[in-house]
Amino acid sequence: MSDASRAWARRLGALHLSSHDEGLAGTVVSNPTNLRYLVGFAGSTALLVAADAGDWLVTDGRYDAAVREAVAAERMAPVQVERVELRYDLTLAGLIARLGLRQVGFDAGHVTVATLETWRRATSTAGVDWRATEGVVERLRLVKDEQEIAVFRRAGPALADVARHLGLWVRAGRTEREVAKDIDAAIERAGFSGPAFPTIVASGPNSALPHARPGDRRLAAGDLVVLDFGGVLDGYCVDLTRMAGIRPVGSNAAAIVTAVQSAHRAALGAVRPGVQGVEVDRAARAALEALGLGPAFLHGTGHGLGLEVHEAPRLSRTGTGAADRLDAGTVCTIEPGAYVEGLGGARLEDDVLVTAAGYEVLTEAPRDLLVV
Amino acid sequence: MSDASRAWARRLGALHLSSHDEGLAGTVVSNPTNLRYLVGFAGSTALLVAADAGDWLVTDGRYDAAVREAVAAERMAPVQVERVELRYDLTLAGLIARLGLRQVGFDAGHVTVATLETWRRATSTAGVDWRATEGVVERLRLVKDEQEIAVFRRAGPALADVARHLGLWVRAGRTEREVAKDIDAAIERAGFSGPAFPTIVASGPNSALPHARPGDRRLAAGDLVVLDFGGVLDGYCVDLTRMAGIRPVGSNAAAIVTAVQSAHRAALGAVRPGVQGVEVDRAARAALEALGLGPAFLHGTGHGLGLEVHEAPRLSRTGTGAADRLDAGTVCTIEPGAYVEGLGGARLEDDVLVTAAGYEVLTEAPRDLLVV
Repeated sequence: MSDASRAWARRLGALHLSSHDEGLAGTVVSNPTNLRYLVGFAGSTALLVAADAGDWLVTDGRYDAAVREAVAAERMAPVQVERVELRYDLTLAGLIARLGLRQVGFDAGHVTVATLETWRRATSTAGVDWRATEGVVERLRLVKDEQEIAVFRRAGPALADVARHLGLWVRAGRTEREVAKDIDAAIERAGFSGPAFPTIVASGPNSALPHARPGDRRLAAGDLVVLDFGGVLDGYCVDLTRMAGIRPVGSNAAAIVTAVQSAHRAALGAVRPGVQGVEVDRAARAALEALGLGPAFLHGTGHGLGLEVHEAPRLSRTGTGAADRLDAGTVCTIEPGAYVEGLGGARLEDDVLVTAAGYEVLTEAPRDLLVV
Repeated sequence: MSDASRAWARRLGALHLSSHDEGLAGTVVSNPTNLRYLVGFAGSTALLVAADAGDWLVTDGRYDAAVREAVAAERMAPVQVERVELRYDLTLAGLIARLGLRQVGFDAGHVTVATLETWRRATSTAGVDWRATEGVVERLRLVKDEQEIAVFRRAGPALADVARHLGLWVRAGRTEREVAKDIDAAIERAGFSGPAFPTIVASGPNSALPHARPGDRRLAAGDLVVLDFGGVLDGYCVDLTRMAGIRPVGSNAAAIVTAVQSAHRAALGAVRPGVQGVEVDRAARAALEALGLGPAFLHGTGHGLGLEVHEAPRLSRTGTGAADRLDAGTVCTIEPGAYVEGLGGARLEDDVLVTAAGYEVLTEAPRDLLVV
């Protein structure tokens, strides 16, 4: 049994257990990321029916041959395949009727109102009682297992290494887009399968917009430049932000970066196993408020990382839920920022693994303002 | 007033009209693609409240400054901005209460069961009656307007030009991944902002899997090679598939390609304004069935193109709905395929614009088997 097979067995076991706890005869999983996590399915469309009698993957002719092959070669969990000939709801209903399931869970956070209605209709004669569940698999995904942590320990330093080379590409006169391209190429050379999201290079006035897209603006004297980029390695996302400035950087602009550095330190200082996301956010926010930059902090302090670049926990003012607790094994970003119209903005972002002892910064690289 | 401003005004007007027809006081739009279409918002998260009193965009601190700036510069429709301080549901509920809306539509095809529940809770004291609507904006998006057609008339030929150069990259001994990289680079050189989806290069046995991912397999004598790639231009997606073969190609393998060519011709022959997607699919399917390849055709004949690479209409066995009719102005793919385990598979794909007179192939390039 491979490491991956053991991981799938453990994850499916946890899902079955949670179904039992909720009094469900089975659970339908539809979120593609959750399917990848639970059984290793990498396509766009399938449904997993996890029941006492076993695990079925409902998928269509684009995928079913590849899935059977992957299952046989142990590149996927040992699911049985149910091929959709016409419509997913009909095949799903047929399978549920055959298995005699009555109480069936679905993920209310992923299934749309319209999809639930088609499932309800298709299973109405079988008398299925559809029960909303929320975030069951997401909660499993929250705490990373050994294999996942091993990926993060390769991915974090590889991304930090890209950050250490930013000085090669950031220069007055170059456009944001040109710099973004160089970063993307470096992400690929570093062994990532691709960027985790469209790379952000936001200069001068654009730096004051937290989610600016790189454009044709040329980096110019006095600019702050936000460089925010990420990579995907073996399916897992890492995410990092560093700041550059184009000489001469005014003292007011430089002060924003210094303030964000202190918020970053304050947030890191609040990270420990069992802490709520909201507490880490409060630490970063307090540091910026003390410097008069409270209203300039336009987003949360961080978010979980995993198969998705934004997942639980939330390190923000709303990070008060059960899924927002930073247990040991959680991986998340720490990324305070401050954005001042007419002056510019700054953000500093690292990825941390929460451990029993505290935390480990996965993306260790200098956080000074890179002045070029 | 710019062309874009006129387009947004027309689209928002159509949405308001449809709300009125349904007896709604307002409609909440949450699908990011629909937000881009209706008002030009390009971020990841926002809600549009379209009511008689005007159009509000509810968004958070990551985007609100950029949105105000874009509205002022007429790079977005003239929406009013409602900034989320803590939670979207609370801000949305506050706005709805202030406007005094009672019957409010939401998109059942996009809003999840859990999200609707939070909206219901947040608006319960205001007595809001949430009404499911489905595909209202998607139906508007179905028929492309002049500006959109102009983009497709640039994007289609640019992608066809990449197809004409496939002979430069497809060679025995190269890996699927290497060929895919060359195609991706050519897509970028052709002026696209990026690929519309991960490029497929599926060789030999992999060609029999409709959605294989490029791997380390080296192209070898006798292989069929499926080359399926797309590009995004000004937000719009085009999508094309051509077939290559590595010398010497066996006659059974070549016969699959010939069969798919005939299915492609048959499908094109069925395209005319007003036809249902299912009829075009039936034409392609009949052609393959006549050659004994009916069961080898594992997917639908095509899908609509636009801001998404898969949108309405469906040209498949399920393409019987109102949104699956090919009216003049519809843009869709024609992509029959046949997949035979142990032998290989083939797919040929073009993009067509349905016109009052019939159709226009946007991606005209030779459809012969490229033997290298």
